[in-house]
Amino acid sequence: MTDRPSSSSAAPHDLFAHAPDRVSLYEVSPRDGLQNEAVVVPLEAKKQLVAALVASGVKRLEITSFVSPKWVPQLADAEDLAREMRPPEGVTFSALCPNAKGLERALATGLGEIAVFMSASETHNQKNINKSIDRTLGVFSEIVPPAIEAGLRVRGYVSTVWGCPYEGPVSAERSVEITKKLLELGCYQVSLGDTIGVGTPKQTRDIVLRCLDAMRVDQFALHLHDTRGTALANILVGLELGVRDFDASVGGLGGCPYAPGAAGNVATEDLVYMLHGMGIETGIDLDKLIEAGNVAERVLGRPLPGKVHKAGAFRRRPS
Amino acid sequence: MTDRPSSSSAAPHDLFAHAPDRVSLYEVSPRDGLQNEAVVVPLEAKKQLVAALVASGVKRLEITSFVSPKWVPQLADAEDLAREMRPPEGVTFSALCPNAKGLERALATGLGEIAVFMSASETHNQKNINKSIDRTLGVFSEIVPPAIEAGLRVRGYVSTVWGCPYEGPVSAERSVEITKKLLELGCYQVSLGDTIGVGTPKQTRDIVLRCLDAMRVDQFALHLHDTRGTALANILVGLELGVRDFDASVGGLGGCPYAPGAAGNVATEDLVYMLHGMGIETGIDLDKLIEAGNVAERVLGRPLPGKVHKAGAFRRRPS
Repeated sequence: MTDRPSSSSAAPHDLFAHAPDRVSLYEVSPRDGLQNEAVVVPLEAKKQLVAALVASGVKRLEITSFVSPKWVPQLADAEDLAREMRPPEGVTFSALCPNAKGLERALATGLGEIAVFMSASETHNQKNINKSIDRTLGVFSEIVPPAIEAGLRVRGYVSTVWGCPYEGPVSAERSVEITKKLLELGCYQVSLGDTIGVGTPKQTRDIVLRCLDAMRVDQFALHLHDTRGTALANILVGLELGVRDFDASVGGLGGCPYAPGAAGNVATEDLVYMLHGMGIETGIDLDKLIEAGNVAERVLGRPLPGKVHKAGAFRRRPS
Repeated sequence: MTDRPSSSSAAPHDLFAHAPDRVSLYEVSPRDGLQNEAVVVPLEAKKQLVAALVASGVKRLEITSFVSPKWVPQLADAEDLAREMRPPEGVTFSALCPNAKGLERALATGLGEIAVFMSASETHNQKNINKSIDRTLGVFSEIVPPAIEAGLRVRGYVSTVWGCPYEGPVSAERSVEITKKLLELGCYQVSLGDTIGVGTPKQTRDIVLRCLDAMRVDQFALHLHDTRGTALANILVGLELGVRDFDASVGGLGGCPYAPGAAGNVATEDLVYMLHGMGIETGIDLDKLIEAGNVAERVLGRPLPGKVHKAGAFRRRPS
């Protein structure tokens, strides 16, 4: 044990002085969750899941993807879902959109928002979307401005920011550079992803500080996977630094179905539980969100990794 | 969304300025884990688990309990385990010890350390150890000083500090008061437990700050359950405030076996992964710890909730 300052010198500066009073959650389970499932979930079940999420108070949902059904057969019903589910007042439905063909499909459905996606590491970008980073940015420069002109909002994703399964470490500087390019193209916000769930808190601090130096705090979101259990700790760092936008997936939907208990996206209900416990508003009813998690489990017929929908909320007042 | 300071005013004070360079982990899986299992694990399998943990570099282990075998048949082999497993140089084996009878049994085995335990909430204390808090302190005042005189180190536990399943909220002031009494009796350290895993970060900050006001930082440890996914976030708050002692259980052993995926203790390997990622030393070899998690799964014949032993560590340098 090294010699450390005594407790009295460990000045209890207020860790949460910069934390927001309210955060905006972006729900990805219908898309990021279901696209990774071995089974194709029927359209009606998807509609039930989206409806349960909306009923819980989630305001921003990514409901599907206009990636080719050849690559993601799980979401081949994208048009039907987007057409049949109309967001209530104040709710936004979004969908992934990889290229001009995807934009055409999205526009035909009347969705209000799309999301473009790429990686911060060259190898992952190449393997995931079969293009170099530069070429991907070129494609986006041809679809983002027209999408905005057509009245859509466009969100961006940058994956593998915390680490790449092929390249290992990823330069935070490079991630921020790509993020800024997406903002310049017209994305209103870019979500930075810990795609393989390797992030730890000091790294998250470094990434967030670089973002805060380079853009407004509402121009980026954190999309953290809980593969190694660190998602909420990383989110806490974001909160401490003032970040107000986080992606999440009810039940932690998006974990690999072949490894029981393995986790993907941070579970929305676990995040909401933590936020509400900290007095941070989300606009979400946790009990109804837990119900949405139960819908997700029923739809998939397997237990999901999220914890609060199993353990239940805790009443701070005795009943 | 309320009006928030812009990014530039969200001053990036150094969140980790008071974090320790090194922490000491106290491994509870052989006791806190196995006592909650439906099956009685054979002595030989327990020895394998303890040996695997020691091989990983864990230095402090609670290996069993001298609670009556009538109440905890899973650990009825306490004497045999304590006699047959001798800690190598620099390693401490401890065991729970509820009363004079337990102390007698512990002394007969030659263990170097015992732990006494009680709750911060009256109802939980009554239901768990069948005595009032005052009477429990009375019993401890009759066993802790003799134990120390006999050459043992004594650790204390205070449960339900973050919340009680019967009473709901628990007064942090009361928890600290009980903790101080245990220190006065001679405990070298008291471990504060979030027994039902309800804690969130601001609450953890409040509890830790009260402790720091009332005792030295090495006189308390945090024992956090991950029932609602918040354990690592709560530990992060402890680290930010300078706490250096944490309890953990390999694989997250200690979750309820009747609820697949439900989590109990924070998984040691998840904690070590986070700590090493932050450059905080533990003296533990993560790969060997993951092996110990595999031993625990084999011994119990079921998947455990810990994540890093499933996902594997991540090499920050590409191989």
